[in-house]
Amino acid sequence: MNRLAHRSTQLRQLLAGPAIVRAVGGHDALTAKLAHAAGFETMWASSLAASASHGVPDASLLTMTQFLDIAESMTQASPLPVIADCDTGFGDARNVAYAVARYEARGIAAMCIEDKRFPKLNSFADGGQDLLPAAEFAAKIRAGKQAQTDPAFLLIARTEAFIAGRDLAEALDRAHQYADAGADAILVHSKSVHPDQVLKFAAAWDRDLPLIAIPTTYPQVTEAELLAAGYRVVIYANQGLRATVSSVQDMLRVLSQAGNAAALEERLAPMQAVFDLQGMPGAYRTAP
Amino acid sequence: MNRLAHRSTQLRQLLAGPAIVRAVGGHDALTAKLAHAAGFETMWASSLAASASHGVPDASLLTMTQFLDIAESMTQASPLPVIADCDTGFGDARNVAYAVARYEARGIAAMCIEDKRFPKLNSFADGGQDLLPAAEFAAKIRAGKQAQTDPAFLLIARTEAFIAGRDLAEALDRAHQYADAGADAILVHSKSVHPDQVLKFAAAWDRDLPLIAIPTTYPQVTEAELLAAGYRVVIYANQGLRATVSSVQDMLRVLSQAGNAAALEERLAPMQAVFDLQGMPGAYRTAP
Amino acid sequence: MNRLAHRSTQLRQLLAGPAIVRAVGGHDALTAKLAHAAGFETMWASSLAASASHGVPDASLLTMTQFLDIAESMTQASPLPVIADCDTGFGDARNVAYAVARYEARGIAAMCIEDKRFPKLNSFADGGQDLLPAAEFAAKIRAGKQAQTDPAFLLIARTEAFIAGRDLAEALDRAHQYADAGADAILVHSKSVHPDQVLKFAAAWDRDLPLIAIPTTYPQVTEAELLAAGYRVVIYANQGLRATVSSVQDMLRVLSQAGNAAALEERLAPMQAVFDLQGMPGAYRTAP
Amino acid sequence: MNRLAHRSTQLRQLLAGPAIVRAVGGHDALTAKLAHAAGFETMWASSLAASASHGVPDASLLTMTQFLDIAESMTQASPLPVIADCDTGFGDARNVAYAVARYEARGIAAMCIEDKRFPKLNSFADGGQDLLPAAEFAAKIRAGKQAQTDPAFLLIARTEAFIAGRDLAEALDRAHQYADAGADAILVHSKSVHPDQVLKFAAAWDRDLPLIAIPTTYPQVTEAELLAAGYRVVIYANQGLRATVSSVQDMLRVLSQAGNAAALEERLAPMQAVFDLQGMPGAYRTAP
Repeated sequence: MNRLAHRSTQLRQLLAGPAIVRAVGGHDALTAKLAHAAGFETMWASSLAASASHGVPDASLLTMTQFLDIAESMTQASPLPVIADCDTGFGDARNVAYAVARYEARGIAAMCIEDKRFPKLNSFADGGQDLLPAAEFAAKIRAGKQAQTDPAFLLIARTEAFIAGRDLAEALDRAHQYADAGADAILVHSKSVHPDQVLKFAAAWDRDLPLIAIPTTYPQVTEAELLAAGYRVVIYANQGLRATVSSVQDMLRVLSQAGNAAALEERLAPMQAVFDLQGMPGAYRTAP
Repeated sequence: MNRLAHRSTQLRQLLAGPAIVRAVGGHDALTAKLAHAAGFETMWASSLAASASHGVPDASLLTMTQFLDIAESMTQASPLPVIADCDTGFGDARNVAYAVARYEARGIAAMCIEDKRFPKLNSFADGGQDLLPAAEFAAKIRAGKQAQTDPAFLLIARTEAFIAGRDLAEALDRAHQYADAGADAILVHSKSVHPDQVLKFAAAWDRDLPLIAIPTTYPQVTEAELLAAGYRVVIYANQGLRATVSSVQDMLRVLSQAGNAAALEERLAPMQAVFDLQGMPGAYRTAP
Repeated sequence: MNRLAHRSTQLRQLLAGPAIVRAVGGHDALTAKLAHAAGFETMWASSLAASASHGVPDASLLTMTQFLDIAESMTQASPLPVIADCDTGFGDARNVAYAVARYEARGIAAMCIEDKRFPKLNSFADGGQDLLPAAEFAAKIRAGKQAQTDPAFLLIARTEAFIAGRDLAEALDRAHQYADAGADAILVHSKSVHPDQVLKFAAAWDRDLPLIAIPTTYPQVTEAELLAAGYRVVIYANQGLRATVSSVQDMLRVLSQAGNAAALEERLAPMQAVFDLQGMPGAYRTAP
Repeated sequence: MNRLAHRSTQLRQLLAGPAIVRAVGGHDALTAKLAHAAGFETMWASSLAASASHGVPDASLLTMTQFLDIAESMTQASPLPVIADCDTGFGDARNVAYAVARYEARGIAAMCIEDKRFPKLNSFADGGQDLLPAAEFAAKIRAGKQAQTDPAFLLIARTEAFIAGRDLAEALDRAHQYADAGADAILVHSKSVHPDQVLKFAAAWDRDLPLIAIPTTYPQVTEAELLAAGYRVVIYANQGLRATVSSVQDMLRVLSQAGNAAALEERLAPMQAVFDLQGMPGAYRTAP
């Protein structure tokens, strides 16, 4: 088997270890290389980031094959296991089963699907946050797990119960149903500005299944706090995208005002750093 | 005809105007949106940036169809005309003709091809800078121009004579042959740390064809100086990529040290800015 | 504008002419070239055929970008206008609007969407034929028409009312609503073994909008009968696929029994015919 | 590891067995399913067939990523090991190494590359059959083998010596060099109308490496003869494509003359057969 064949096993080993597992969100292989160089353990192939990169809203407009190519590119370019943000699973249970077959065959470590209706809107968008009945989503999880042929591949169930304004009881009930359906981990999403929802969820969680959080709206929570509460994975989903946006905006502003690129040089990564990241044969070389 | 059908005409109008035309290099639609918002006139669909984004060296590894999809995505997402960096034209004259048919059909305003051998290495990489005989490259230009059905589409000839260590006379001779073959503009590349090569070229240039420069190694040159010398287009080819690399590296360093994302917030574009760029339906909304 | 820019206008001219317009279903450019050579007027980029070619059920598993690439390939390779079978429009009204922008930009003449729920099953599959409420589908049509920037592009509304077991009154009511929403033509699908449903529909149809039929289950109906009844387009959706399946099956059976390819030669198109179809430079040439 | 991970091992087992291994050429998953159903052992992902399907000459116009997607689709849809026809390896040694990494990661069993120059023309096209110096092609093989991480993956060296009009001595010398460079099998191509070239080659072959033939121009040779001569694999490269062309041409001719599809029915595979091949949920069902 090839060098990509063990990423799911790597991810399971990370989940079984003592430390919290940090996933960096991104939309390309470059970010995966930077995350690996910076010591992070996994990549989150973010649908928000991929959509923004393509200039379209995070609204189920990019296609499964586009997302698959991105997750594969990350997996090829870095040794990190990739967790693919697969939104609602691209349709119904049949689509999930098909996607699992495609993703595991490309060496992606894990897929994450969420319990909203297809097509979905980004969880932080005002409106459009309709949940699927829990039993229907559990059927998707079951279909995905049955389609899997690599026993190490992970299918993560993400509940949007809090995003949709539901209470802790419903979030827990949904998570239980998804666990019963075979999910390998539970991602508890929240748009609260406090970590209260995810911490209460963890306090009430009574299964062995690992928990995952995405502290976008409650960035003050520390990895240590999440770990202590019972979380195994923390996803920094959009910080890379937002760093990119602000740095490119700044660069363009300076460039536009200066009328030449000299003023930018000190704030830019040197060309040699880009060459190193992409494995360019031959050093960067100017002429006198 | 659809809204993409006039990008090549737009680019020709820019070239016919009095101001220098600025192209921002990038690898995705997001950069095109940022460039448009910052007031720039065109996009350079950079093969260096696309390759780095995919985690591979800039060495003719990404394929024509991958580059084509990227250039289309930029064209779809922004009103800017896109100049596609097509390296050596993906093979010989037949490949160039085929690419022209594909690119013009997708609404890309212009293709730029260079007179090195396929597969090529990045112009700043030490080694691998072999030139094609000028007559052979001229034949590629002719083939491309014959394949074109939209009269406004532009095929830009890029000479790597200076990159390959040749002198001004050869650079000019090559450019003359490419102009005679039907090229719509000449890109004069140089890796000198001074703008001397490109300025001397322009001083000796005696055709109507517009000139284009990429001041990567000589960023001190101003747009005003290039315009005065006779250049019509300046390409800021890699600054967006390098801003991205440095900002994501910084972000990951801070994140890794802090153990939470709070410290990052002030240096990141707000989520609402990302939503605005991608045209998300519904505002960014947190919960108390 | 390029040579693909007028396909939608061509299709409108065909619809305005006196003869019935025949569309050949297929999944690749080769079929489009064969259809053109055989004198047919348009191509139907069939989702059944594309799915079968990819070895997956016709169940919304292939993605919009895959279908788009196929329809583009047909458009590039032949002068025929292509009508793209877009199933349910890949999601909701937002997906339809996005698809229209993508399809018209690639020079596809028309998109056809149907009033079933996403993900859909093939219309002849037993089960899974749930209709969307008519108002919801009309909203999809409106969204698609608003997204269009090329006034000649066509958005065809396909009603699956008969497929879902509904009566003529509902089929007509749905078609009226879709016409009011801006649809450019109405495709009336039926799985009856008699043409009665489509003929009765046409007899009761009181709008200027062209009607389209797919006589798969009622192949005995003639083009002359359909034209007389008021149909403007007849789609032979799956005959090319079925001819391919049976001929490749036969070929493999003979080959397997013979243990060499000689026995096949007389039943196969000669290599030169393949070369001609694909525009190979250089004739087919063997050596003594 | 997933169900695709062992295809290269399967192919090695077939090569180690007593029977000749038959590969069916094709360009899509459907053909792979038909080949499997008919009892054939492997698929040849043909660049001629893929190019013809896309309506372009077999001249290095389709891209590596397009070919890769096709080979993956065949691998996903059938249990057969797929041998991917990779022309000249998409460029130089670096392109070969990159392609090997991509192909093995997708579960493709083997890649075959040939010793002509990029871009190549189809071996039966008159003209454009320039050979690469043997040492240069051997370097490609070495680069490919070094890039491989799955020990079972096969890299097949195809010599076009006979195609280019060279003699047996050169064909053998090239094959020896490629074997020394690490090739896993040797494909001896010939456009002779007699099997003499391939039989003489086999008679003089003195290595353990398996030999492969493509009897397009000499279809009279039997599998038994090839096996007796020392060949391990016979590739029926284009018969599926040619069967498709002739059957679709015939179908369109009949259809055009008849003006309805009824006359076709008896010569077409039934819809249920298509449904079965693609795994459609739900049987084909008409209404009275």
